[in-house]
Amino acid sequence: MVISSSGQHAALLALDWGSSGLRAFLIDAQGQTLASRSSAMGASVMDGKPQAYAQALEQIAGDWLQAQPQLPLPLLACGMVGAKHGWREAPYVDCPASEADLAASSVEVAFGVGQHLRILPGLRYQPQGMPPDVMRGEETQLFGALALHPGLAEAACVVMPGTHSKWAELRDAKVRGFATQMTGELFALLRQHSVLGRLMPEPEAATDSSAFLAGVRAARDAGHLGLGHQLFAVRSLGLTEQLPASGLADYMSGLLIGHELRAGLAWRTAHGLGLAPLLLIGEPELCARYEQGLNVFDGVVALRLDNTAPTGLWRLAQSAGWLQLSH
Amino acid sequence: MVISSSGQHAALLALDWGSSGLRAFLIDAQGQTLASRSSAMGASVMDGKPQAYAQALEQIAGDWLQAQPQLPLPLLACGMVGAKHGWREAPYVDCPASEADLAASSVEVAFGVGQHLRILPGLRYQPQGMPPDVMRGEETQLFGALALHPGLAEAACVVMPGTHSKWAELRDAKVRGFATQMTGELFALLRQHSVLGRLMPEPEAATDSSAFLAGVRAARDAGHLGLGHQLFAVRSLGLTEQLPASGLADYMSGLLIGHELRAGLAWRTAHGLGLAPLLLIGEPELCARYEQGLNVFDGVVALRLDNTAPTGLWRLAQSAGWLQLSH
Repeated sequence: MVISSSGQHAALLALDWGSSGLRAFLIDAQGQTLASRSSAMGASVMDGKPQAYAQALEQIAGDWLQAQPQLPLPLLACGMVGAKHGWREAPYVDCPASEADLAASSVEVAFGVGQHLRILPGLRYQPQGMPPDVMRGEETQLFGALALHPGLAEAACVVMPGTHSKWAELRDAKVRGFATQMTGELFALLRQHSVLGRLMPEPEAATDSSAFLAGVRAARDAGHLGLGHQLFAVRSLGLTEQLPASGLADYMSGLLIGHELRAGLAWRTAHGLGLAPLLLIGEPELCARYEQGLNVFDGVVALRLDNTAPTGLWRLAQSAGWLQLSH
Repeated sequence: MVISSSGQHAALLALDWGSSGLRAFLIDAQGQTLASRSSAMGASVMDGKPQAYAQALEQIAGDWLQAQPQLPLPLLACGMVGAKHGWREAPYVDCPASEADLAASSVEVAFGVGQHLRILPGLRYQPQGMPPDVMRGEETQLFGALALHPGLAEAACVVMPGTHSKWAELRDAKVRGFATQMTGELFALLRQHSVLGRLMPEPEAATDSSAFLAGVRAARDAGHLGLGHQLFAVRSLGLTEQLPASGLADYMSGLLIGHELRAGLAWRTAHGLGLAPLLLIGEPELCARYEQGLNVFDGVVALRLDNTAPTGLWRLAQSAGWLQLSH
């Protein structure tokens, strides 16, 4: 049995297994994280090969698993590991979706000597007459936030900034719908490959907060001018030296995040969440940037949380009766 | 003296010298193109080196220039060759700008044995309280369109689709203002480097016109949903097989062009050009795509023109008295 230095017993090995990385958490029956590790072995480097996944799991948690061969630790994963080209596909569950809906649609994959990993599905949201939207991993963060703050179950708007930011509607302890914004990916593409990136100094200068806020304000006040027009201002402001080169990346970040906030806040209102709490979940520095941006729009952040995936994995395992009982 | 097969005399060597290519035209006193050539020696491969420009010019037009050493042919260029990191900088002229304003701000650079190239400046537009916008080369196309269709001098809205599309306002034979849209560059970035491109078949399948129009309609009906959200639908429509992989690139093209048209048509109205003729200038296949898209918005294209830069160069040379007089 795996026991932490404080004498607590592990009840779950939880895996947050996304495209770009793998994080493993040993969690006790009460939801406390006893130990955590991370590796770069994300789904995007696995090339869809089962043995590559099994090897990555062995590398990150082999010693934890060998510590108790008689009474194997339950393993539960969320994220791209369950995608079509992941380890095993856990097909999307449609919104609105509860904890129980996710648990009921999980799949299992065998590895090592008689061991099993359970993989949670992602969510699909199909608004009337519009294209579908999808998430994998963020649904688990949403249930983690609910576990930490049960008061959010009635209604909340949750923003999860990142490569593909998600804006989600929580209602009656279910995920009722969500909208993706490609903000982080667009920033990376434009920074690395576009004509705009060429004017930006390398390596990245210190953050220019006033340039960031100028970009957010420009997005807020864009009127009929779209993102495709405003982005070109990064170049023209640089060429005409109306903005120093050191501020161009932050101005562009402000434009992109500002357009996300503008669309997301309108989405929140359209979903009747204007008076519900507004949450930010994710990497603290990025969430702080979003909170600064929301200030420009008079948006009030009720709560900022770091990655709630481990708590979500524990909560789903607990509800489904998958935790290892202590003795 | 350079004489065409039909016996006409060249009066100008006109160079349309952009980032990605160089086009050279021998033009007679009446504006007829006698011969044309193109090369990939655009400003972006010159690394700012004067001798590289001189060499590219020699390669593309050396024989034309040597044909009449006693009475050298006048040379006039537009485009990125006059940018800060071009052959010689021709600083931007502010809008509103006339033909005469452009001619007055041209610069000269010497090359070879006593030869000279005149380079036209680009335009800068600084709307009140907003970032500036810039163009280099398109201003010459605008004056070319005016030369071909003098009726447009009173008022016209001109769209020049491309990597950085331009929407321009013509008034009283001047360029009064313009707005850039990064549509072409965004398409290329997303196609080549993003998660969206990964679902698209390689090599490019035949054009899927219905997928393109679906993308344009989605952009038209986007409401508060921004481009950063709608682009993600390219992925979700692919993952959920609601759109065949062969249509994803066209759907994305429709979304991007649709957002440009939506913003551009609102810009046109805001500039009081709702009743003025709407022109498309550029590569015929791309202009046809824009015209299809404009149909979705009930936009009526008055005129479609191929590259008018050579005519613009001739017109500016004629007005400024730079053409070689025949004898």
